[in-house]
Amino acid sequence: MAGAETPASPTAEGRLAEEFAVPSQVEAVRVQMAEFARRHGSAGRRVVLITSGGTKVPLESRTVRFLDNFSSGRRGATSAEHFLDSGYAVIFLHRHRSLYPYARLYAGVNLLDALRVEGEGEGDSGRVTVDQGALPGITAVLRRYAAVKEAGLLLPVEFSTLSEYLHLLKAAAQALSSIGSSAMFYLAAAVSDFYIPASEMPEHKIQSSNGPLQISMKMVPKMLSPLVKDWAPEAFVISFKLETDPSILLERARRALDTYRHQAVVANVLDTRRGYVVVVTPSTQDELSLTEDDVHRGVEIEERIVSKLSAAHGEFIATPR
Amino acid sequence: MAGAETPASPTAEGRLAEEFAVPSQVEAVRVQMAEFARRHGSAGRRVVLITSGGTKVPLESRTVRFLDNFSSGRRGATSAEHFLDSGYAVIFLHRHRSLYPYARLYAGVNLLDALRVEGEGEGDSGRVTVDQGALPGITAVLRRYAAVKEAGLLLPVEFSTLSEYLHLLKAAAQALSSIGSSAMFYLAAAVSDFYIPASEMPEHKIQSSNGPLQISMKMVPKMLSPLVKDWAPEAFVISFKLETDPSILLERARRALDTYRHQAVVANVLDTRRGYVVVVTPSTQDELSLTEDDVHRGVEIEERIVSKLSAAHGEFIATPR
Repeated sequence: MAGAETPASPTAEGRLAEEFAVPSQVEAVRVQMAEFARRHGSAGRRVVLITSGGTKVPLESRTVRFLDNFSSGRRGATSAEHFLDSGYAVIFLHRHRSLYPYARLYAGVNLLDALRVEGEGEGDSGRVTVDQGALPGITAVLRRYAAVKEAGLLLPVEFSTLSEYLHLLKAAAQALSSIGSSAMFYLAAAVSDFYIPASEMPEHKIQSSNGPLQISMKMVPKMLSPLVKDWAPEAFVISFKLETDPSILLERARRALDTYRHQAVVANVLDTRRGYVVVVTPSTQDELSLTEDDVHRGVEIEERIVSKLSAAHGEFIATPR
Repeated sequence: MAGAETPASPTAEGRLAEEFAVPSQVEAVRVQMAEFARRHGSAGRRVVLITSGGTKVPLESRTVRFLDNFSSGRRGATSAEHFLDSGYAVIFLHRHRSLYPYARLYAGVNLLDALRVEGEGEGDSGRVTVDQGALPGITAVLRRYAAVKEAGLLLPVEFSTLSEYLHLLKAAAQALSSIGSSAMFYLAAAVSDFYIPASEMPEHKIQSSNGPLQISMKMVPKMLSPLVKDWAPEAFVISFKLETDPSILLERARRALDTYRHQAVVANVLDTRRGYVVVVTPSTQDELSLTEDDVHRGVEIEERIVSKLSAAHGEFIATPR
């Protein structure tokens, strides 16, 4: 696009390489993910990469303060369970300490309140039992969790900072490229749109005695662009759009599809996100919602989202391109 | 201090009332804390208020993004255990989901990896047992935790945002004023120095399509000042100073003591905080540190800090003022 006299503006991929330090674990994780994709791909199983949780954006290089995004990781963790139920193998790229599949059901419980030690005594003697009342449904959950682990269907990968997230996403895309259209990207993480380049960051903790704080943040390069075009061009890619203002939601979702040319956007509003989403594709727009009765029966909206998208993924795989 | 013609600058307490919305739970929590203080005070027990974890500072009123402070809450949670061992009753004012006394020992363990379901079957049948290898020392910890709970020695109070923290701190100080010098304030929370006033906050999620982000943050009023002067003037008050640059640490600690006139500062540096601190008082300066042997034996620096401060608190109570 750039003419002979206009210098090309840097690509997202170029900015990733230049502006975000490569975390040390990336190579080892890439190998793990590639092996996981090959193993399940050759067994004829689809593989979904789920991203989940918010990203941490440091304001100082020896970080005391950081910018974060509201996200417990519930959407990603719950969706992982439903993808596993639908026969997918799952790479779960999640924020350290965000909600985790199955364990998320007991995230509000203090472990120590769910255990009892029996018998008198001191120190390490005594039998420990589980108060199943404090952990509703625990036996069924443990059985399912053990089966998933034994079958090697869930590969957890952790990130904390934005840099880690971006580089691990690229590594995942490359690792999954070997299985072509059998790969789905389900990008549910709440990724920061803004960051401070390392070169502009103070080394030490910002002193409050210096007065009010002015922070100037640069826009994060949009990785959806190289992901769809270069890293995993055959994959089925879903992005998420969260807004607080419902009036701009669908227009933003359509604009994202036009810009990045991927397969679907799951659009949702902060206040209603647990009971209502719209799945937007270039040619369709489906509202998914829970009735009061669904909520009483413990149905989760992620079951509907995953069912919709896994059907669409099936059609996508079957369609010659 | 203000002359007849200079308008007095607003006090920290005035700014708290004007600029930070009162969270709904404050009144109920104040009553709980006052009752807790009275009960233990009349039993001749000292009471410590521990603050722990970082504060969340929203950037939007329907919050998607926020500024946070690095803090797992380890210092506060570990110290709470040692204060309980030293005979204190503890109000544990902590960030939601930060580390919790006793449970913090297993924070890295996925609950589901520590439990086993025995026997074949489906659904909710089956016995659940604990893999004690996954939870080292669990029986002793459960016994101690149960004893603390049964004696009603630990009152947990949660906050998430800076506003909640500030108002709950004030409520705690007022609740503890009835027991005079038997109260200690151990202010280990990593409280933001900066915030955005509600009046300057956008309602909706900041759009990344509007370009780079400029954030302008105001300084948070220092609550140590009214806490020491007005809310709990007889109490024994400890603040914490965390820096990344060791060369400015002690000067900052001394300056805080000069400014706020409280009893001690625990000064520490980010990189070495788990093995080295300096306890600074107006007339003393004590370095506390762990030897390699201490570390091998599982000794924690908080044991030393609490031992030092609880002795100093005893002297403080005995000294006529």
